[in-house]
Amino acid sequence: MEARPGGRSARVRDAVRQATLVELAENGYGGLTMEGVASRSGVHKTTVYRRWGSPEGLIADALELAGSEPWPIPDTGSLRDDLRGIVELVRSGFADPVAGPIASAFVSAAVQGSGPAQALHAFFASRHEQAAPVVERAIARGEVPPGTDAAELIRLAVSPVYYRLFITHEPVTERDAERAADAALAAARAGVLRE
Amino acid sequence: MEARPGGRSARVRDAVRQATLVELAENGYGGLTMEGVASRSGVHKTTVYRRWGSPEGLIADALELAGSEPWPIPDTGSLRDDLRGIVELVRSGFADPVAGPIASAFVSAAVQGSGPAQALHAFFASRHEQAAPVVERAIARGEVPPGTDAAELIRLAVSPVYYRLFITHEPVTERDAERAADAALAAARAGVLRE
Repeated sequence: MEARPGGRSARVRDAVRQATLVELAENGYGGLTMEGVASRSGVHKTTVYRRWGSPEGLIADALELAGSEPWPIPDTGSLRDDLRGIVELVRSGFADPVAGPIASAFVSAAVQGSGPAQALHAFFASRHEQAAPVVERAIARGEVPPGTDAAELIRLAVSPVYYRLFITHEPVTERDAERAADAALAAARAGVLRE
Repeated sequence: MEARPGGRSARVRDAVRQATLVELAENGYGGLTMEGVASRSGVHKTTVYRRWGSPEGLIADALELAGSEPWPIPDTGSLRDDLRGIVELVRSGFADPVAGPIASAFVSAAVQGSGPAQALHAFFASRHEQAAPVVERAIARGEVPPGTDAAELIRLAVSPVYYRLFITHEPVTERDAERAADAALAAARAGVLRE
């Protein structure tokens, strides 16, 4: 696809965002270049430079695309199983040979630059919001106290997975993911997460 | 200090490690250069290149220095207060104008390269080990069940702070730190963290 001079079509944007994701999967954030994305997307290099400015700009825009994809939040009828499902989604996502490197590249880019950091902040705000019904349903069923902070419960459940992956660089097993979910549930039940 | 050709004195190493920490505090990982460290340490550039190889090598060695400094683990007589103290150490450390940028640079470097990642892994293994007595004393006092996994309890208590700082890029208040500690304690009391 060739961008017309001054063209701002949604197709150009989609092509560039998709190309960014594929480049990230293959080469990581360190290997993301304007030239690589231009070449893969078929969009002229000068257009990519003019509209996205830098690899940081590409990352921020691709993150918006990733954030718009719905998260397949479970609804098992039990908060324990819903939380375990959510944490396992995170764990298995990073273990996936295609999605994993893309997600890791987002985290890496956000640690290095404020543009991607803002985009990742918005991405997670959306994720926490999408997961909130799991907690609201559990409150309605009487599984956790009324007023339990849904976003905080989700943060608590997933944070040990991120801690192992990006801070301590330890492996994360399915059992680790399960235990993180169960620990967050125990804290919520004890009333620690009331707003 | 001028390194003699082939000299491998501990003084040269200390000067380079200290200079690396100061450079990280001022310029972050992105601004860490072999030239900057050579100039600040007074060690000849060719020596810095020969012994440390790259900014990654400097980071890994500086992390070893940071890891050798004892962590002032509290001993208040109460697991709740000890855990709150530990999580607050982490939160306030990252908020510190000198120590914060250094610690953030370590995390950033480790996300980008395997040398620093291995060094950070060893650093946190040491931190988890240093904090373990807090849990062992609590078991002896009957505050948490026998067999509670000390390292896992520490991971759980601190991970929400790292999640906010390096993943979701959200602010971390003292109240957030307290709640993370209390949540980990509730999980331990519920028996979720038994080995």
